[in-house]
Amino acid sequence: MTDFHEAAKGGLTSAQLEEVLRQVGAERYHNRHPFHHQMTAGALTKGQMQAWALNRYCYQAVIPRKDATIIARAEDPAFRAEWRKRVEDHDGDDGWNGGIAKWLKLATGLGLHAEMVKGERFALPATRFAVGAYLSFCASRSLLEAVASSLTELFSPVIIGERVPAILAKYDYVTRDTLAYFEKRPEQASRDSNFALAYVLSHADTPERQQAAIDALVFKCDVLWAMLDALMHAYGEPGHIPPGAFQPEAR
Amino acid sequence: MTDFHEAAKGGLTSAQLEEVLRQVGAERYHNRHPFHHQMTAGALTKGQMQAWALNRYCYQAVIPRKDATIIARAEDPAFRAEWRKRVEDHDGDDGWNGGIAKWLKLATGLGLHAEMVKGERFALPATRFAVGAYLSFCASRSLLEAVASSLTELFSPVIIGERVPAILAKYDYVTRDTLAYFEKRPEQASRDSNFALAYVLSHADTPERQQAAIDALVFKCDVLWAMLDALMHAYGEPGHIPPGAFQPEAR
Repeated sequence: MTDFHEAAKGGLTSAQLEEVLRQVGAERYHNRHPFHHQMTAGALTKGQMQAWALNRYCYQAVIPRKDATIIARAEDPAFRAEWRKRVEDHDGDDGWNGGIAKWLKLATGLGLHAEMVKGERFALPATRFAVGAYLSFCASRSLLEAVASSLTELFSPVIIGERVPAILAKYDYVTRDTLAYFEKRPEQASRDSNFALAYVLSHADTPERQQAAIDALVFKCDVLWAMLDALMHAYGEPGHIPPGAFQPEAR
Repeated sequence: MTDFHEAAKGGLTSAQLEEVLRQVGAERYHNRHPFHHQMTAGALTKGQMQAWALNRYCYQAVIPRKDATIIARAEDPAFRAEWRKRVEDHDGDDGWNGGIAKWLKLATGLGLHAEMVKGERFALPATRFAVGAYLSFCASRSLLEAVASSLTELFSPVIIGERVPAILAKYDYVTRDTLAYFEKRPEQASRDSNFALAYVLSHADTPERQQAAIDALVFKCDVLWAMLDALMHAYGEPGHIPPGAFQPEAR
């Protein structure tokens, strides 16, 4: 396990910085998490799949607010216009025909009630805390750090490529239609992460800023990892569902 | 398990509100958590005890900032003067002779290096997210909610009364001196929570405000519970320590 804490010491070239950022993903992105491995192995119960969709909804729902926070802090109109595409992708034309609506469809396709999912009241507190930390980070840190924290999207086409075929093959109650969320995501994520990576590589022009960008990506990997840790602890065996959280009927 | 979500529907008398708040504690305070039970049973390894002290330090360290946030929002000088005692308790005269310093002593008494603990870098991300959520809550919610979220102190004399004798009896490497933090806490917590409870009971004067106070205490119980969930998942058996977090040497 690499210690990324002083990875930019002495300064990096742009190519070296990109290499370190990709190494963060290779070591710490949540496709390395055991819960993801259980999912792709077909080992999750329907209740666990529901808990995953229910909790991940809280993350999906906050993404456009996170991105609007970033837009609000950007002084460059061209940057704002580019970043706005992210909000459009998730909210759609009317708020309910973009990515959030598709994630909701995934959750209801797994048998959950839409209103229960949207209410977020039965999500794990740990999920809410992680998602809240991400939103706060993008509001309180530098714009460079906020942008760098989005770079997990560099790795999302990989996890989607692992997740979708495995889910369709191993969980007979999941249809391609239920997973429609993922259809456009690899293309959108590639477009977005190329833009964000170029921004980070050109603006992280001191060792301090390079380290801040690396730390931001580590932080974001921690957010995604902590969400799966919480799911695994609550809904794995023996199961430690915290008071008030979703209780699966399906096993 | 009581659903506290609509506990104040229709309105409560002051005595009824107090009863509901105490019921929240009886059902959701972290003395009900299996990690606490393992601790008092003498079942934790030294590494688990260290991880507990290391992570809980992040919570202790943010308490005076949380309390200063509350003071900063209070318009009543008498309220501020009373609440200031909390900051004094934790920071002491010079920053390092109050509660935080005593918690650090607990951590070093368990064999950790002070600088490592103070740096917080090896704490679990989930701990930082939970602690950050508490700080954000006290900054962004109403003063009533911020005050109500402190009411877990109503229950802390109980958990300290369970914890201290059990630790001294069951872990031969822990001395009374190491646990000095807890000596003054029951008295301080009683003083503070009596004041906070009186404030909440007099200011929660509509069903909506009563519900907000109840929800705030539920939220705070969730914070403490999530911290122990994260510890148990990372450092229990089989152990799922997230990337970059504290790796115990002692077993």
